[in-house]
Amino acid sequence: MAVHSFESLTGFVQRVLEAIGCSTADAQTAAHALVSADLRGIDSHGVARLQGYLRLKEAGRVNVTPHLQIVHESPSTAVVDGDAGLGLVVAPYAMRVAIEKARTCGTGWVSVRNSNHFGIAGYHAMMALPEDMIGIAMTNASALVAPTFSKEKMLGTNPIAVAIPAGVQPPFVADFATTTAANGKLELLQQKNSPTPDGWVQDVEGQPSTDAHILKKQGALLPLGGDREHGSHKGYALGSIVDIFSAVFSGASYGPWAPPFPAYIAMPENMPGKGLGHFFGAMRIDAFRPAEEFKGHMDNWIERFRAATPAPGYDRVLIPGDPERETAALRSVQGIPIHVAVEKDLAEIAERLGIVGL
Amino acid sequence: MAVHSFESLTGFVQRVLEAIGCSTADAQTAAHALVSADLRGIDSHGVARLQGYLRLKEAGRVNVTPHLQIVHESPSTAVVDGDAGLGLVVAPYAMRVAIEKARTCGTGWVSVRNSNHFGIAGYHAMMALPEDMIGIAMTNASALVAPTFSKEKMLGTNPIAVAIPAGVQPPFVADFATTTAANGKLELLQQKNSPTPDGWVQDVEGQPSTDAHILKKQGALLPLGGDREHGSHKGYALGSIVDIFSAVFSGASYGPWAPPFPAYIAMPENMPGKGLGHFFGAMRIDAFRPAEEFKGHMDNWIERFRAATPAPGYDRVLIPGDPERETAALRSVQGIPIHVAVEKDLAEIAERLGIVGL
Repeated sequence: MAVHSFESLTGFVQRVLEAIGCSTADAQTAAHALVSADLRGIDSHGVARLQGYLRLKEAGRVNVTPHLQIVHESPSTAVVDGDAGLGLVVAPYAMRVAIEKARTCGTGWVSVRNSNHFGIAGYHAMMALPEDMIGIAMTNASALVAPTFSKEKMLGTNPIAVAIPAGVQPPFVADFATTTAANGKLELLQQKNSPTPDGWVQDVEGQPSTDAHILKKQGALLPLGGDREHGSHKGYALGSIVDIFSAVFSGASYGPWAPPFPAYIAMPENMPGKGLGHFFGAMRIDAFRPAEEFKGHMDNWIERFRAATPAPGYDRVLIPGDPERETAALRSVQGIPIHVAVEKDLAEIAERLGIVGL
Repeated sequence: MAVHSFESLTGFVQRVLEAIGCSTADAQTAAHALVSADLRGIDSHGVARLQGYLRLKEAGRVNVTPHLQIVHESPSTAVVDGDAGLGLVVAPYAMRVAIEKARTCGTGWVSVRNSNHFGIAGYHAMMALPEDMIGIAMTNASALVAPTFSKEKMLGTNPIAVAIPAGVQPPFVADFATTTAANGKLELLQQKNSPTPDGWVQDVEGQPSTDAHILKKQGALLPLGGDREHGSHKGYALGSIVDIFSAVFSGASYGPWAPPFPAYIAMPENMPGKGLGHFFGAMRIDAFRPAEEFKGHMDNWIERFRAATPAPGYDRVLIPGDPERETAALRSVQGIPIHVAVEKDLAEIAERLGIVGL
């Protein structure tokens, strides 16, 4: 397990993206977004994905010199066409459009079509925080999730992130897949050859399963809740809302037609829209209440929840964003550990592109 | 089990509300919102609650002649003070403000303070549908829910509703509590003296429980997911977001300080805001994409999901809103069945207020 600084990893990713044709500005934007996932401890969405992004480029599915543009708008809304660019470049652009709309209008809402995987949703939502705005980010994704009562996979893990500024307290940052467990959690169990808990996955026949390798056997992830009795229709509804806001609003491809992340999987036939879709929101706090007043109450909210009496066997009640922020604080000092297999992947990329490695 | 028409129930509720001092217009608005819950099969939120609303009035917590006003606004946002009115009156007013904002600005977002229980969230969200808008409604509520790792109850069941128009298909209407199961589901099990499934509730000590009567023994509901392993931190995050948008944005009382629904429970001490809070959104479809184009794709989305192959043991995959719409269609023809105990309650109300009964 090698350890690298945030700066050395972003520098490397930037060199990689420049080598495949991205502008320096785009490569910097994307590298910062990507490596922030590693910094925050969401290793499944960081540099471990770089190889996957490059394969999409090689398959002609990623355009490294996209012409990003607003194709439809109203005072508080816009639709952005990502021109098949890296989601890591398209998403920050679209989030900035949402922030600008919010500046003049109180709130800004941007739906994006023709994009690709955008890394972690929380990164984009958090762009609103320094502006004293609440940030919202969501995206659809390749269909790996079977709705309640369905054998077929119809939705992606479709995450939702909401970042809310506080005063002296760190911000509230929720960022979660609308499934019981995200793919990254399955991968951890695969490495240990452990079964999954109930309610995470089902097999190809639509029967409940606890096989952590089930996705490789045409199985499916389950919506948050797991089954009907435990509220999976709510997770299914949430994933659907993300799909509709991200893709039906914008003209991206939706539901089972969302483009698959692995470049070796053929694109679905009869796609009803272009590429992946995202949805972003920015709400100026002072469009509702003076910012200092709001932040004082957020501090009070956070302090009260943090002070809640823990249940037996637990030390403390967490605020959404606490674990990621604590990991980021640690990793900015101690460096970011990179798994041996990923390290090897990155070395292979450096050699192939003829650039300076890590 | 008596059966009544929607019209006869709304007429009765209107007479009740007029008798306690509401204007005719307010009584009509509230009666329509309240009985729509019964019509849609959400019996726990319909006329069964009327007695509870009257008790809040008697306790001086509901103002039957509220002066509703916008106290803060931007082009796309507003904060409404409900002046302690019935939520059933305040919520439709605020939703109309959101719709008007959306007309000029593309979207409208309204946070509400100083309100009371507003019935079903879905009713208010659905007000946007005839305007070719997406409607969103949420509310905080009395603290019955223990966050992940918490022994203490800190949040309400904090529901989220999202209504999305389609073309030839009926609209997509999601409306769900951010807990594994809502209170109404517990009440059904209590009547049958059945235990709950795992992951619904915990006892006063914070230990997992399956006792459907646990709330009367100081137990708690659990966030959607049930426990950490099944994603309860996501349900906790969702409930928190609803609380913050509804109450911290508006200046309502939040978290464990949200006013309790039962009038016999004392109000919390040191409340940080006024009354309950709600949050509403309206998004004009054509602020993103021509309405007909969007609705055509929503039809396609709905038809594809409805055609998904069901898992073994199930007949069909449902679209959010299907069960409630089917119940409403049936009940508008066959009438709305009212439980004997509720029927008795309503007769007692009629007698006490000296009005014509059902």
